[in-house]
Amino acid sequence: MTTGEPRLGPGEEFDRIRSLARALGSRAAGLGDDCALVDLGGEILAASTDLSIENVHFRRDWLSFDEIGWRCAAAALSDLAAVGAMPIGVLTAIGAPGTSVQSELDQVMSGVGALLDETGGVVLGGDLSSSPVWTVSVTVLGRARRPVLRSGGKPGDSVWVTGSLGGARAALETWLGGEQPAPSSRESFARPHPRLLAGVWLADTGASAMIDLSDGLGGDVRHLSAASGVAITIELSLLPVHDGVPDVARRIGEDPRVFAAGGGEDYELLALLPPEFTPAMAQRFEAHAGIGLARVGSVEEGAGVRLLLDGTPVEIAGYDHFR
Amino acid sequence: MTTGEPRLGPGEEFDRIRSLARALGSRAAGLGDDCALVDLGGEILAASTDLSIENVHFRRDWLSFDEIGWRCAAAALSDLAAVGAMPIGVLTAIGAPGTSVQSELDQVMSGVGALLDETGGVVLGGDLSSSPVWTVSVTVLGRARRPVLRSGGKPGDSVWVTGSLGGARAALETWLGGEQPAPSSRESFARPHPRLLAGVWLADTGASAMIDLSDGLGGDVRHLSAASGVAITIELSLLPVHDGVPDVARRIGEDPRVFAAGGGEDYELLALLPPEFTPAMAQRFEAHAGIGLARVGSVEEGAGVRLLLDGTPVEIAGYDHFR
Repeated sequence: MTTGEPRLGPGEEFDRIRSLARALGSRAAGLGDDCALVDLGGEILAASTDLSIENVHFRRDWLSFDEIGWRCAAAALSDLAAVGAMPIGVLTAIGAPGTSVQSELDQVMSGVGALLDETGGVVLGGDLSSSPVWTVSVTVLGRARRPVLRSGGKPGDSVWVTGSLGGARAALETWLGGEQPAPSSRESFARPHPRLLAGVWLADTGASAMIDLSDGLGGDVRHLSAASGVAITIELSLLPVHDGVPDVARRIGEDPRVFAAGGGEDYELLALLPPEFTPAMAQRFEAHAGIGLARVGSVEEGAGVRLLLDGTPVEIAGYDHFR
Repeated sequence: MTTGEPRLGPGEEFDRIRSLARALGSRAAGLGDDCALVDLGGEILAASTDLSIENVHFRRDWLSFDEIGWRCAAAALSDLAAVGAMPIGVLTAIGAPGTSVQSELDQVMSGVGALLDETGGVVLGGDLSSSPVWTVSVTVLGRARRPVLRSGGKPGDSVWVTGSLGGARAALETWLGGEQPAPSSRESFARPHPRLLAGVWLADTGASAMIDLSDGLGGDVRHLSAASGVAITIELSLLPVHDGVPDVARRIGEDPRVFAAGGGEDYELLALLPPEFTPAMAQRFEAHAGIGLARVGSVEEGAGVRLLLDGTPVEIAGYDHFR
């Protein structure tokens, strides 16, 4: 745990976190990474908390109650993946409207349980309250053998991304346009898969820095750059773009690669890997984790992030949750 | 961690928890105690989460923002006290209305920090979102050398309570009556002191079971009885009643001892102590912890709870948060 101002990228949400860290002074420890890491005599505990609120993070006409539970838990578990930790368990605090019924609460919790069937871990505890809107706070606890922070990136590293990007945003934009998303995009939004095994594999293989893509690559890569004190260049034409993206991107007049880089909540991992990491090792990763691993950029001396599209600089705003 | 249906007392909130545990099946572990306890190779980690929502748990015209932060963190830290753990840190997820300003968020966090100055521990992480009303979820992590569960009570134990009861309810009833509470009652509601040192002392001295009085003695003692599989008798005339209670109780026509037993959110500890525990040891506790420790009842073979007032049975409803 380190104290001091968190080294985050630009953005209103991150200005808020910087201000809160100042308000806490020496009582803030290790803010600004995906997880807190606590050395408990041999075991390193990783912990993170994630708040999901109806009409901010999800809508009830988009998701079933068990999907709400799955998605809220996935957002939190993804932070464990980002430091290379595996889950011990979760604590779930749920606020439910007075008009809710028990079976809805049970379905939210069944969704959490279904995800834990996939990832491992148990529900360790929770809290219930009434609330004007559905509110789900999930805190995850995990064990990290070799934790990877955002701050370890070095010049000479290369930038890799797991899976594919933009699926969740494709669903979101389609719903916002009043239509039903394609099944595979809907699945990306409703039941994201935290990349836990991938995160541990990358940690064990020497990843120098990692982050999960919750705010979108365009914003999240800035946190890696700021925390590691390095310059990062991303070539968007190398991005693995989700199948559901091209149709939706075309409809709103955006290049699919730019669309994918601006999409949040994919919960893929962005990892900085050392020069020794080879394409053959990426193939071994794909066999192990069952998802792709694509090289999308490079790390140099300096500061800041350059996003290129076929070699030409482009601007992409981060996905700001504080809305 | 144990699986299976949590052994809780009666009440709608607890029926909900039982239903959620059934929905989770084998993915539920150790639900129904104040904290989850996880053995991490030598250290026992205690974890608990607590959700506080504006107009359910507090009102903004009653509390300042730093008091909101303090109170929400205190409610969570009190669960560590109840198992005899000391804090490592907290994770704070805050939902704030779109109309809120940064200084209000900073004040909430300053209140959390001010309590941590008293209790020890740091802010390990958090999350921010917009929300229709102020929403504060605090997850606490602590270390327990000799954790005390609700389930260890034995016939022959006696029942003890720390500090004094009813102060927070006295403030609440006064506010609900449209008046300003007495300063000492207001302080009980706005800045409760989690009994962390008291909890560790009682754990080290052989407490067989403990719980913190968040739902009021009338309800919480039922959880101890159900979890331990014992009958408990409380003599309300022995309760340590907060100074602010008599005036308010008289105004609403209730006996002050019954009023105090029905009041939630005092965050005092209720402990079952073995026959070897003597009044002289209670005096040593008071010197150590700086608060009182009063013997208020006894534990027998059997089941259920008897509440007596000067020897005559009385009924007291628990304080139900699901409202």
